[in-house]
This record gives sequence, structure tokens and C-alpha cells, in this order.
Amino acid sequence: MIAVDWGTSSFRAYRLNVAGVVMEQRSAAAGLIACNGAFEAVLAEQLKDWDDELIVMAGMIGSRSGWHEVPYVQCPAGIDEIAAGMLEVTASGMPSRRIFIVPGLSGRSSSGLPEVMRGEETQLLGLLGLLSALPGDGAHTVCLPGTHSKWAIVKDGSISSFQTAMTGELYAVLKQHSLLGALMTEGVDDAMAFSSGVQTSSQSGGLLNHLFSVRTRGLFGEFSATQLPSYLSGLLIGHELLGLSPETERVHLIGNSVLLSRYQRALAMRGIESSLHAEVLAAQGLHQLALTLSQKP
Amino acid sequence: MIAVDWGTSSFRAYRLNVAGVVMEQRSAAAGLIACNGAFEAVLAEQLKDWDDELIVMAGMIGSRSGWHEVPYVQCPAGIDEIAAGMLEVTASGMPSRRIFIVPGLSGRSSSGLPEVMRGEETQLLGLLGLLSALPGDGAHTVCLPGTHSKWAIVKDGSISSFQTAMTGELYAVLKQHSLLGALMTEGVDDAMAFSSGVQTSSQSGGLLNHLFSVRTRGLFGEFSATQLPSYLSGLLIGHELLGLSPETERVHLIGNSVLLSRYQRALAMRGIESSLHAEVLAAQGLHQLALTLSQKP
Repeated sequence: MIAVDWGTSSFRAYRLNVAGVVMEQRSAAAGLIACNGAFEAVLAEQLKDWDDELIVMAGMIGSRSGWHEVPYVQCPAGIDEIAAGMLEVTASGMPSRRIFIVPGLSGRSSSGLPEVMRGEETQLLGLLGLLSALPGDGAHTVCLPGTHSKWAIVKDGSISSFQTAMTGELYAVLKQHSLLGALMTEGVDDAMAFSSGVQTSSQSGGLLNHLFSVRTRGLFGEFSATQLPSYLSGLLIGHELLGLSPETERVHLIGNSVLLSRYQRALAMRGIESSLHAEVLAAQGLHQLALTLSQKP
Repeated sequence: MIAVDWGTSSFRAYRLNVAGVVMEQRSAAAGLIACNGAFEAVLAEQLKDWDDELIVMAGMIGSRSGWHEVPYVQCPAGIDEIAAGMLEVTASGMPSRRIFIVPGLSGRSSSGLPEVMRGEETQLLGLLGLLSALPGDGAHTVCLPGTHSKWAIVKDGSISSFQTAMTGELYAVLKQHSLLGALMTEGVDDAMAFSSGVQTSSQSGGLLNHLFSVRTRGLFGEFSATQLPSYLSGLLIGHELLGLSPETERVHLIGNSVLLSRYQRALAMRGIESSLHAEVLAAQGLHQLALTLSQKP
């Protein structure tokens, strides 16, 4: 089968054997925006030399601005509920294929606000597969850091609830478009400045006040222009972690290794352990969804 | 005398009589950026028909990127400490004038972070003049909302401490450059959406999570595209107010009336009264500083 993670800015495809092992993978800058609506042509082109019949896709491709809008499935949801929400689509140029789009999830945050995800649910399903093999499988806290970080509670093979933190997007807009960004120059990851940001985040004043310290600590020479991006990153990630329940002992982190190492350091500063997982979990989750199809009549 | 409030994006001048009453005022889009370094020429042009000898200026004109950098005066500071930090500058094209630039203030926030202001201190001095006339003059909480809102504690004729919240700048960059902004259209101030934002801000989850609800509440039709800017404004102002000490009963607000009415509503929702003051307080503060000059030999 072929598993596709198709988001706003990127396209990733994996070719898996029947056991769910990834045989080949590829990625392209063929996200939704770049496709300009020509989803069928882009998919045919990307997969032309992979002749597997079954294609299962997840991500923003199933959103209002994607190929077909697939309604959200409500949390709590496990493999069966998500599989039941998959939509089969037809592509006239690919008559020999069966193509499915996975639904996103909706739910409510701890304060009752509406929440949505599209794409991350397949990574969570992949992780659930791993966790179910461990002894003592209870509730786990999972974080998928990024532009819109997702924090999920998974339990007994199901995604119980989740909520979003706009950490990555805020970092990017502040760096590119604010007065703070104007004081920074691109630098290597500075561990000391990052740690200082994480420490500051747990003090009084709130995020809106702490952000101003990026300016003043630069102004007074406490941090150089190349250290300020790391300080800002520490401030924002530190604030993101303030939302964690005080009983949290361990967080499963899914994502790219550079970002995960920052989260791991910030969590360690709060006395919380972490387990790292790669984004390829999405392929495993999509494979499990594909298996439910073959079990149907 | 002539009082000048000269900031990054605007130039405001007031002509006062000896009693400190504003006789005339003018403003121009001749902020620091627009001047491109030609401060003396711009000042001469703006004031050419006002022949008063004494000119006292405050704001970013005294910053590193202004005419002359005037070192910050450390808090706590009252009229005498600020007056002592004033810098006299000479302008070859205006030999008959005496020109002074007021220093900004520096201090530490509640969590020990460095803080600075330039320009707002003259509005605070103007307010101190008013407050000293009232019976029972103890500690007062003052807010100057804006791009970088300043919150000050003033007591016994002195500015004890202050801190900054980047509320206005965050609102602007999110509206113009984030995914949230892409969902909004400009609308009139929507009181219901604003109140909902203020209410949400005091719930669990933190600002980074609450911001995402601008997206989801739009997505699920709870707010229209024209209501979302008011909701975002309520969220941010509500978070700014979370920093207030629980004993606060009244806040003095200084600024333009549209913005002040939003802060007044948000404060009322938290059971806090407010007193509104116009930005012309800056002229009163500059007049008081001018009086200290005439008292010198």
C-alpha cells in the first residue's frame, strides 16, 4: 500500500509492505498551496512508478481547501471510529487505484474551546500501536510540536482529548514581522539563552510581558542579536509547557529531531521525561487504517 | 513654552501659557522614521510660527535612534529625578531657542526583567500632578494602553515601578501576518465577541492555546469574519489584565478614547473601576519639567 501525508506546504509518501514496514519514501514541495487545485494530477505524477492499488491519505488534503472535505470525527476516537470516517475518492486518471482520505478529529480543550486536527491523528494512531505492545498501558501525554503544536491524551487505544498551542506560528510571525525580530540575527541554537527563556516563562508577568524582555535584554546587552531567537524560542516553549498537568511525568514527542531536542530540554528543566518518535509514525498509522479496509466485506 | 511628544511614528506639539494651559496644539506624521535623521530641520519647520524660547521634548527622540541619546533614569523616579536627567541640545538653525530632551525610565518588572519607557513618563508626571491634588493620595495603578502597553505603580509623587505588555503589537502582527488574520475581515467593534475573548482569557490553557480558538470558533461559525478581530482583541487584553494584582480596585487609563473604552470594559468584567485621561497629560508633564528649569539659577 501507499501512505500519503499531504499538508498545506508538503507532500510525503511511503510505500509499505503487508507487514507495515516502510520500503521506500519520498517527499516533495507539493503541498496544497503549490498544487493550486490540481490534486489528482499531482498525485498521479508523484506516484507514477509505485503501482500499488491502495492509497490512504491524511492531512489538510481532507480539509475545506483540499481535494474533498472529510467531516471531522469527534473525540474520543480510536482506530475504528477514524476508519469509519474515511472517504473513498475517485480519480479518473488513476482507474486502477483505490484512494481513501482519512478524517481529522474535533474535540474540546480543557476550557471547552473547539479544537481540530488533520494529519496528526495518523501519527497518534501509529504511536497507539507502539504503546499497546507495552505493559501497563494507561493514559499517555503526547506532543507533536510545530506551527500549531498538538497535545493529546491517549488511553486504552483511543485519543481521549487534545488541544493546540500556536507556538511555532507565533515564533515565526514575531521573528519575521515584529519589532523583536528586527533586533535578531539568525544564529545557531544557543542552549544558555534557550534555558533562560524557559526559566523566565514560569515567572510572574505573563507572556505579553515576557515577550518585551526579548527587546530589553537585547538592549542592555544581556543577549546578543544571534542569541535572541533561542531566548524567544525558550520563552514560547516554556509558556506552552505551563499548560501541562502537574502530574505529568513523561511526554511522548513526535516530530523532527531539531525541534524535539528543544522540547526535550525544556521538559527536563521542569522535571519531566520524554520519549522521542519520528514522523514516520504517520505511515504506521495509515497502514493500520488500511488493514481495517481489508477486514471489511 | 512648547511641549513636544516625538515618537517613532508621530510628532505632537503643544503651546502652553505660563499657567500650563494648552493654548494651541498640532500633530504631524513626522515621527522618527519619517524624519530620516533631519530632526533639526523638521523641528524648525513644525514650530516656525511659534516663537516661544523654551522647547521641552519627550519620546523616542531621546533614544539611540533619535536626535541625541539621553540615558535612562532609574525607577523609582519623580519630577526631580527626571528633570535632573534632561539633556540640553543645540540647534544651529534655531539660535534663539533653548531645547531640552527628557530622559526615559528604566526599571525591573515584577519578575526582575529589565524594563524601559520613553515618552510615557511625561504622561505619568502629568497624572501625578492631578493625583497630588486629590485627598488620600496613596499608590495608584496606571495603564497606558498601546503597541507596548505600560503599567505603572505611582505613589507619593513618584513612579515606583512599571512593566510592559506587547498587546498592541501582537494584535497587529497576528492580524496582518498570521493564519488567524487570514480568517478575518475588518469590522466595527463587536462588544459580544470582545467580551467572549476577555472571558476566555481567564480560563485554563494559556494564551498560546486560546489564540487557536480564533481559528476554530471562526471555522465552526461561532463568530463571523468581522467579529474575529474583536474576539482576538478581547483575548489579548484579557490576558494582559491577568497580570494585575488581585487587590487592584481602580486603574487610571491614559490614551485615545477608542482603545480606553475597550480596556474600561475588560476591567469592568473583572470588577475593577477605571478613570480615563487623555494623552494631553504629556503636555502637563512637560510643563512641570519646564518649571524646574526656571527654578534653577
